[in-house]
Amino acid sequence: MKSQADAKECDHPISHSVVQPNKSDLVKRLNRIEGQARGVAKMVEEDRYCVDILTQIAAIQSALDALAMQLLASHTNGCVRSAIKSGDGDAAVEELMTLVKRFVR
Amino acid sequence: MKSQADAKECDHPISHSVVQPNKSDLVKRLNRIEGQARGVAKMVEEDRYCVDILTQIAAIQSALDALAMQLLASHTNGCVRSAIKSGDGDAAVEELMTLVKRFVR
Amino acid sequence: MKSQADAKECDHPISHSVVQPNKSDLVKRLNRIEGQARGVAKMVEEDRYCVDILTQIAAIQSALDALAMQLLASHTNGCVRSAIKSGDGDAAVEELMTLVKRFVR
Amino acid sequence: MKSQADAKECDHPISHSVVQPNKSDLVKRLNRIEGQARGVAKMVEEDRYCVDILTQIAAIQSALDALAMQLLASHTNGCVRSAIKSGDGDAAVEELMTLVKRFVR
Repeated sequence: MKSQADAKECDHPISHSVVQPNKSDLVKRLNRIEGQARGVAKMVEEDRYCVDILTQIAAIQSALDALAMQLLASHTNGCVRSAIKSGDGDAAVEELMTLVKRFVR
Repeated sequence: MKSQADAKECDHPISHSVVQPNKSDLVKRLNRIEGQARGVAKMVEEDRYCVDILTQIAAIQSALDALAMQLLASHTNGCVRSAIKSGDGDAAVEELMTLVKRFVR
Repeated sequence: MKSQADAKECDHPISHSVVQPNKSDLVKRLNRIEGQARGVAKMVEEDRYCVDILTQIAAIQSALDALAMQLLASHTNGCVRSAIKSGDGDAAVEELMTLVKRFVR
Repeated sequence: MKSQADAKECDHPISHSVVQPNKSDLVKRLNRIEGQARGVAKMVEEDRYCVDILTQIAAIQSALDALAMQLLASHTNGCVRSAIKSGDGDAAVEELMTLVKRFVR
């Protein structure tokens, strides 16, 4: 994991990236995901049907996947691009690939 | 989605399934996932480095995947098995496959 | 991996399973996948555009995923069901879950 | 899909990319995958145990995933990097993200 220090070195934090996913929109979506997780916990406590519970978990996964892909595009268009332009691409691309592998089966 | 009524028809709710994932353990893990989502929202608000944020999202995904596989095993050993034994296997297996496809790429 | 001996113990080989994916259809689809892999090798030799090559690899993955889900349904409706009915469900369900995990991220 | 023409525009074909996956090594691996697909077809024809067949399909998937990730790194370090440097990054990054989504669940 990069430290906060590294973040400072990045000219394009999420909130100013080229793709520009609206920050408050991202937070809103994460709050919704947080609520979905709370809802699933409640379903388990209520002995709800396992298929309904698993369907809800799959919905959270989809929401996280969409969020991750948006952030990945924002990161690539921001930090990675500026790193490549400033001749510092090797580390940025390697880091990007490590990240992509985390989201691939 | 199955209704609460269907859950009642299932002889093996999560909390009594053969695989028996401890219910309070499931809730504890879901609460942790809920906290992780809240933490990621905070990271976005603080303009933390996108790679750190994406790494945290990948961690939530892994936690959800593990939870889903445990519930799937519990459901198969519980509801699906009893449905098959009571000669009601067709619907149960079809529902199981629909569920599995949701978690496969 | 189960041995051929185990296969014999299974009352429902693919070709006689409840879901009954036509055997020659399965072989035809596998031959097509084999041809796609050969095609990708040719694209690499011809220095074709990497994006075209990766798009073809993704197409092979989708074809394999669809095939796997059909076989999984056939296996569940065949071997797993008969094992459960004959009171031998524990091993069959555990094996099924191990299999499902191989296809989930 | 991009045309051969586009490939020409790319200064870093696979065989000369920064990451430089050896071309003959890529072809060798693709030939092996082709042989694995042929082997699975044979298993189906021989009514081999479905679990063995599915295990082999999962092995092909893993081989393809590894190949795809190597090509993706090569493409990013080659075509995408040079496009960004030549001020042509927008299309290249968008194309890269479309590609990544194909390999994510």
